[in-house]
Amino acid sequence: MHFTSEQRLDDGVLEREFTLGEIPGTLWTPESAGPVPLILMSHNNGLPRREARLVARARYTAAQGYAVVSIDAAGCGDRPRSAAAEQARAELGRAMRAGDPVDRIDEIFESLVGPLVENAVPEWRATLDAVLELPGIEGPVGYTSWTALGIRLAAVEPRIAAVGFFAGGYVPRAQREEARQVTVPLLFLLQWDDEGNPRQRALDLFDAFGSKEKTLHANLGGHLGTPRFELVDGDRFFGRHLK
Amino acid sequence: MHFTSEQRLDDGVLEREFTLGEIPGTLWTPESAGPVPLILMSHNNGLPRREARLVARARYTAAQGYAVVSIDAAGCGDRPRSAAAEQARAELGRAMRAGDPVDRIDEIFESLVGPLVENAVPEWRATLDAVLELPGIEGPVGYTSWTALGIRLAAVEPRIAAVGFFAGGYVPRAQREEARQVTVPLLFLLQWDDEGNPRQRALDLFDAFGSKEKTLHANLGGHLGTPRFELVDGDRFFGRHLK
Repeated sequence: MHFTSEQRLDDGVLEREFTLGEIPGTLWTPESAGPVPLILMSHNNGLPRREARLVARARYTAAQGYAVVSIDAAGCGDRPRSAAAEQARAELGRAMRAGDPVDRIDEIFESLVGPLVENAVPEWRATLDAVLELPGIEGPVGYTSWTALGIRLAAVEPRIAAVGFFAGGYVPRAQREEARQVTVPLLFLLQWDDEGNPRQRALDLFDAFGSKEKTLHANLGGHLGTPRFELVDGDRFFGRHLK
Repeated sequence: MHFTSEQRLDDGVLEREFTLGEIPGTLWTPESAGPVPLILMSHNNGLPRREARLVARARYTAAQGYAVVSIDAAGCGDRPRSAAAEQARAELGRAMRAGDPVDRIDEIFESLVGPLVENAVPEWRATLDAVLELPGIEGPVGYTSWTALGIRLAAVEPRIAAVGFFAGGYVPRAQREEARQVTVPLLFLLQWDDEGNPRQRALDLFDAFGSKEKTLHANLGGHLGTPRFELVDGDRFFGRHLK
């Protein structure tokens, strides 16, 4: 893990850019001294890790006393584009806007997101290894955001102690089947009118998780309408399980 | 409103029993000086207002800086029993345990709970009038617990500024139709495996509310399994809207 820049922010959080092999990432750590838990904060839909909403969430979370790490997925953010993935992403957007049948969307989704999840898992595990070697970051480890990746990671990575997922109307078939293997405490966040995530499928996914302690929070509105108080609720959820 | 006893509790909360005409009730107020908001805390299923879980919730809420008032519904708690209601309640319990068809349960439910809601509304409005005349209790007013009554009260009572409902798989037909008239901020609490509240009907009810700001919290487990952290979440919800 090689740090390429660092900046102390207004809220006392230290923001450090790094590379780990070819993976670019950002690590946010709080001002507080003692050892802190770690939260892996991912994001799907080809968003860069520097997207403003994601950065704001990471900074808020770090200021509450966590180390937060994010990396760009292959083909996203600072990483080289893949023509095939860009094309599949454009086709997925077109099909969703056109209201294509669920089966057709599933098919494009599977071909795009299935491999993305497969490739992201070893990168996130390598990142987890590297960050936990840094002084003052001891775990336990939480995971938040991208549902499909989180299902696979929680199923294979015993160091993950709690997960917060968002949306989840579309996830690859393999992760729908793996959902029952997720057994850690889980907070599932759903936008009731999310145009890109069929509500019933998201509810079915919530039902499928194997966790004995799982909570669904649903709010009125579309994909980007999550109310700000859910940030505080997410912090309280991780506080119960990681602190 | 005639106070019949008072007791200062360990947490500083003042617990006062009262009668308002033939209605027996309890008022909990916090130690703090200044004016406080008011929460109407109801309960259905023929529970007495002195039921231990309800009292614990009322005391916790009062200690967070609210006046909390509860009254016994007709035929419940300290009030004279009605043979017809007792029989309908026994029949409802039997039908639920036996897994009778939803239509049959609806029919018994309608005959029992429909009139209960009708009769409870003027009693709760009279209670609201009386409590708001007491010094130091100024509103705004929140309502929590019994879904069917809360729908009717929120639809007819403009002083109610926020509502927290629980369960809601079975509510009388009139209240299912009135749900769209509920337009204040709403927190809807659902137990995912509540044996007595069909999940899909509760989700349909959540969907029907007219509120622009509504949040669903669902947790794994049966009717009595609501996790303790929901008490804190409920307090934060009312804090956003009443304080």
